[in-house]
Amino acid sequence: MSDTFDVQFTFRGEAVGKMRNEVRVVSTAPTSGGTYDIATDEGPVHGGDATAPTPLHYFTAALTGCLMTQIRAFARRLGVQVDGLVVDGTTQWLGHLTAPAPYWTEPVRFELVVHIDSPSSTDDVVALVEAAKKGCFVEQTLAKGVTVGHTVRHGDAELKLEESAA
Amino acid sequence: MSDTFDVQFTFRGEAVGKMRNEVRVVSTAPTSGGTYDIATDEGPVHGGDATAPTPLHYFTAALTGCLMTQIRAFARRLGVQVDGLVVDGTTQWLGHLTAPAPYWTEPVRFELVVHIDSPSSTDDVVALVEAAKKGCFVEQTLAKGVTVGHTVRHGDAELKLEESAA
Repeated sequence: MSDTFDVQFTFRGEAVGKMRNEVRVVSTAPTSGGTYDIATDEGPVHGGDATAPTPLHYFTAALTGCLMTQIRAFARRLGVQVDGLVVDGTTQWLGHLTAPAPYWTEPVRFELVVHIDSPSSTDDVVALVEAAKKGCFVEQTLAKGVTVGHTVRHGDAELKLEESAA
Repeated sequence: MSDTFDVQFTFRGEAVGKMRNEVRVVSTAPTSGGTYDIATDEGPVHGGDATAPTPLHYFTAALTGCLMTQIRAFARRLGVQVDGLVVDGTTQWLGHLTAPAPYWTEPVRFELVVHIDSPSSTDDVVALVEAAKKGCFVEQTLAKGVTVGHTVRHGDAELKLEESAA
């Protein structure tokens, strides 16, 4: 038995409309977890038609949902009963205006408040949240960083952009 | 005139059903970019009902959509004409089985292939993608990491978990 497992998605996004993107995301490992079409858009202030959430709405929902999913998935294994679970908080970034590109960006801080209704001890509830943090793919990606490789295809040209290691 | 601007979201996620989470995400800065209700779920293999995409489907769409949005948003400012834009690729993680918690996780590598249809020069197209990378909130979060603060509320107890700096 292997002590690791792969989790992998493939995707294709197409720009349509003014700022709308239609992204098909396919779960390819460890099991086929489904194919979903997820559209993003921007509000009129940013040149879009507000036909869908922005990428950062989805990012924020992914962070929240990932931790919440792992809290419930790990609860049984850790012997903690979860009768109710609500998570609220904030995600925050800073944009720096520059020229000629409009701006560059950096994250500031993300804050999660986890409300758990449980007859288990507070120690056990905290241990569950700590385990879920380590098991949350999104949080571990933020904590550890990851290399994002970019290849640009333009006409017959294909260029691999320089990578900054995570 | 300030040379920075804030980008901020607040959210509340509620666990419902078996593994479904219903997350309300509110854009609060720099302008009210809208409120969206985004649900996540898991497939039956992971104890869910597959009523919605998983958090990692959304995460993958957010990464893709963020870069695509900035490519189009920055194109005019950089004088690059974008007649067509398709991005495809993969996101990849590894899970490590452990006990008693089921597993811990780490990102492996994300790969984006950016197809741009443009009468502009390849140099200008590449410069646009480089600028969009630096302007993409999601990519910069992955490159720089970010501290995620956790507070657990259980009954009358409120505990701030130890932070690992980004």
